[in-house]
Amino acid sequence: MRIAADMADEKLIDKRTALLRVEPSQLEQLLHPRLDPKFKKTVIAKGLPASPGAVFGEVVFSADEAVAVSDAGRKVILVRIETSPEDIHGMQVAQGILTARGGMTSHAAVVARGMGKCCVAGCSSLEIDYNAGKMKAGDTIVSRGEFITLDGAAGEVILGRVPTVDPEMSQFFTKFMSWADKERTLGVRANADTPHDAKVAREFGAEGIGLCRTEHMFFGGDRIDAVREMIMAQNATERAKALAKILPMQRDDFIGILKEMEGLPVTIRLLDPPLHEFLPKEEGEIRDLAHKIGTTPERLKQVRDSLFEFNPMLGHRGSRLGISYPEIYQAQARAILEAACHLRKQGVKAIPEIMLPLIGTKKEFEVLAEEIREVAAEVFKETGQKVAFTVGTMIEVPRACIVADQIAEKAQFFSFGTNDLTQMGYGLSRDDSVKFLGDYVNRGIYKKDPFAELDGEGIGGLMKIAIERGRKTNKNLKLGICGEHGGDPASIRICNQLGLNYVSCSPYRIPVARLAAAQAAIDAKKGKREFKDV
Amino acid sequence: MRIAADMADEKLIDKRTALLRVEPSQLEQLLHPRLDPKFKKTVIAKGLPASPGAVFGEVVFSADEAVAVSDAGRKVILVRIETSPEDIHGMQVAQGILTARGGMTSHAAVVARGMGKCCVAGCSSLEIDYNAGKMKAGDTIVSRGEFITLDGAAGEVILGRVPTVDPEMSQFFTKFMSWADKERTLGVRANADTPHDAKVAREFGAEGIGLCRTEHMFFGGDRIDAVREMIMAQNATERAKALAKILPMQRDDFIGILKEMEGLPVTIRLLDPPLHEFLPKEEGEIRDLAHKIGTTPERLKQVRDSLFEFNPMLGHRGSRLGISYPEIYQAQARAILEAACHLRKQGVKAIPEIMLPLIGTKKEFEVLAEEIREVAAEVFKETGQKVAFTVGTMIEVPRACIVADQIAEKAQFFSFGTNDLTQMGYGLSRDDSVKFLGDYVNRGIYKKDPFAELDGEGIGGLMKIAIERGRKTNKNLKLGICGEHGGDPASIRICNQLGLNYVSCSPYRIPVARLAAAQAAIDAKKGKREFKDV
Repeated sequence: MRIAADMADEKLIDKRTALLRVEPSQLEQLLHPRLDPKFKKTVIAKGLPASPGAVFGEVVFSADEAVAVSDAGRKVILVRIETSPEDIHGMQVAQGILTARGGMTSHAAVVARGMGKCCVAGCSSLEIDYNAGKMKAGDTIVSRGEFITLDGAAGEVILGRVPTVDPEMSQFFTKFMSWADKERTLGVRANADTPHDAKVAREFGAEGIGLCRTEHMFFGGDRIDAVREMIMAQNATERAKALAKILPMQRDDFIGILKEMEGLPVTIRLLDPPLHEFLPKEEGEIRDLAHKIGTTPERLKQVRDSLFEFNPMLGHRGSRLGISYPEIYQAQARAILEAACHLRKQGVKAIPEIMLPLIGTKKEFEVLAEEIREVAAEVFKETGQKVAFTVGTMIEVPRACIVADQIAEKAQFFSFGTNDLTQMGYGLSRDDSVKFLGDYVNRGIYKKDPFAELDGEGIGGLMKIAIERGRKTNKNLKLGICGEHGGDPASIRICNQLGLNYVSCSPYRIPVARLAAAQAAIDAKKGKREFKDV
Repeated sequence: MRIAADMADEKLIDKRTALLRVEPSQLEQLLHPRLDPKFKKTVIAKGLPASPGAVFGEVVFSADEAVAVSDAGRKVILVRIETSPEDIHGMQVAQGILTARGGMTSHAAVVARGMGKCCVAGCSSLEIDYNAGKMKAGDTIVSRGEFITLDGAAGEVILGRVPTVDPEMSQFFTKFMSWADKERTLGVRANADTPHDAKVAREFGAEGIGLCRTEHMFFGGDRIDAVREMIMAQNATERAKALAKILPMQRDDFIGILKEMEGLPVTIRLLDPPLHEFLPKEEGEIRDLAHKIGTTPERLKQVRDSLFEFNPMLGHRGSRLGISYPEIYQAQARAILEAACHLRKQGVKAIPEIMLPLIGTKKEFEVLAEEIREVAAEVFKETGQKVAFTVGTMIEVPRACIVADQIAEKAQFFSFGTNDLTQMGYGLSRDDSVKFLGDYVNRGIYKKDPFAELDGEGIGGLMKIAIERGRKTNKNLKLGICGEHGGDPASIRICNQLGLNYVSCSPYRIPVARLAAAQAAIDAKKGKREFKDV
């Protein structure tokens, strides 16, 4: 980057050529600390370079331990066989994450990249013993409380503490990025769920939040108990009572994020995952929870069993929760709008965009959007404040692409959820395909892993239909993408060709996306097309 | 029907009007026996009328018992909490099937309808105790070996034996159906997996088989052991050895079916379900199997665990098995082509159409079709016979619709698998959606259960894209449908509008489909359209 910028400064090449000479993915590493190259290191295991950065900390083997060590002001590395949504609170406080199982798109890898947190995943030579509080790497045994260092860019696990070198956000960087911003036509937003992430995103140049997931807010701290109480509720009244406990906490979350993003749009997605993800799985946890919320382990297991699904990805989730339990989405809409009104009172301009997940039909959208508008009218009346907000939808179900003209009559924006759209478009589970995706890529059946790089012909073809049909009935329809692809340079080129308004990606990939968007715009001007126009 | 036919005979109405006056679904009941109305019956429980017919038999609680009782020449009713693919051999020999759990699209219901077999499903008031060999309905206890009667059209479970009255295939029926055949432009084929089903289908007027599933052939009798040996194989050689045991059995199956359908096309789908469906689940079964095939229960469990999938519907199944384990599809292709050559030698004209499931890309199809053609060349050389055959694909993955132009360059036919296309198009699992589909239909979000009646706008919209694009590159592309929708009158109207060549449905629905196709053709001539042309 430095060389390209220098050459442009000296007018040896023009700025566009300079922009095209830098590989966007290189930028990401510039923004993370790296290991001090002068230090002699002892690598004890190698895994996948799931998320860059270089960190050290005390080894712990559970999310709760991670929180305890972090609360005591010490640095911590969370080591798990694999992670699940229940580990989020531990992942949030850990310096880095190490897993024995899972690929580049495993839960740990995806969440860590989203958090801009160092992660080494799928380190299959590790033997982890939770009960003994030990892990074994070759002949080396590391016990709970001992130090390790992770190099996320190299996928290395290193014994002890290795000092790190901070990245410099050089003048070159700032100047170079400003050239990119002048060229690009695509907006760049961030996927961010916390005020901290929002702040980082803004510093890196995000022009809004394209995806604020609300489920992480359901896991943190004590609120998970209230969430579980809500799931155990036997009727709407009990459910509303439990939701009332969560509401003020969610409102505070939204106040934090909306304030951080003052003046910029924040797309907030209502609850998406199936409810069984929030219930404990192990016997001990079930007993503890039953005691806490005043029920029996039997009843808890009964509810858990009743929530069992053969194919949860195609199950009772997304807006289907909003249809079955209107109280949940109403409470979330209330929290968002109360937060926005609260800020308005303080003179802070909040621009919430409320997003419904997994919409497949116009009527489904209509019913839920109507309920949100009713909540808004109530909140505006109660607070005496009024804020502008929009209601839109994820486009992640293939059927939604086909009837996009109908949905766009009611929706103010579309945000393509290309993770799910790829899963459903291919009929391919991201979690399960790890086992045979290699065969498919090696034999040239798939050009690339379609979860890493957007498949322009197939999934892009579905998006194209959605865009054409959506814009036919709604000329002002705003279009974005919030899947993992939003931070992938090759995918960003496809988004540029499709004519999206913005891409959204994890905060640490914002500069990558800004440069990739600029390159796509420059190439598009030259008439270069990225994928066959199906 | 009788009245309409009489009026047409007397020229009070024309034949077309007569055809339009009969509700197609009424025909199905005409073809099944019904209870003698003069007999006083004691109804002990009510369930869903999952598949019509009226039958009595001894109660048994497992598939193996069903086979034993049936082998002894006695009539049997298979009673299960719910059924799974492992119960198929028991379902095949049973007079009727009764389940305590599951809806109109549960395994028991779908398989029973396919077999034209009486079924009462989801009879939730039944308490079934497998160990005691008893079931309780209200105050009545029925033990293994006692008689019950099922009325599949009413969903009734009746104590003891109720005599039944056979249907009469009247002259009226034959005449009326011949009028229908003159009007319809859609072909009508059957979904049939056995020579018996093929025979029934032909008697009911099927013009071919649109879907012959090969997985049922993997479950029956002893062959399941060979299949399990194949799954446990550690390499291609071991796998080929186990497959060699299954090959002659499959060849005999195909000889039977192709012979029964002499001169008519038979579309045979290569193995589709994920392999874990073939492995036992219970401890005892696992021990038995391990002993039988010379391995340890631990190794068996390890393989089973390695095959675990979070979302099996989106997992390692369909043509993905053919890509990962080429030997499986090669062996199946060999069995089909050897069967066809064997028949040709006898002067019987077999017309096999080999169908690949779950295809998503052209290259995937190309690789597998190429392997099949290589096998064919070998078989033709070995047998000195040559038969005409085609290779085509299911269209059940949304992506395949988008890139249908590419796939059609290589595929000779498309058969729409609308069960899966609906699941993936909506992002909706058929098994899991039972819990909330009611909410969706009641609130008018879905007009109908999309698994029962084809969704013209959304899924039909995807099919339309596939048809237009497919025909663009392959003018001779043959188009059919083999999902459950192929036997539903409203769905058949949509297929007619889409311009398919044929529909395929379970044998007992053939007359329904013939009439529905005639009605659709008559209405289409009047310019009536069935769904919004998206």
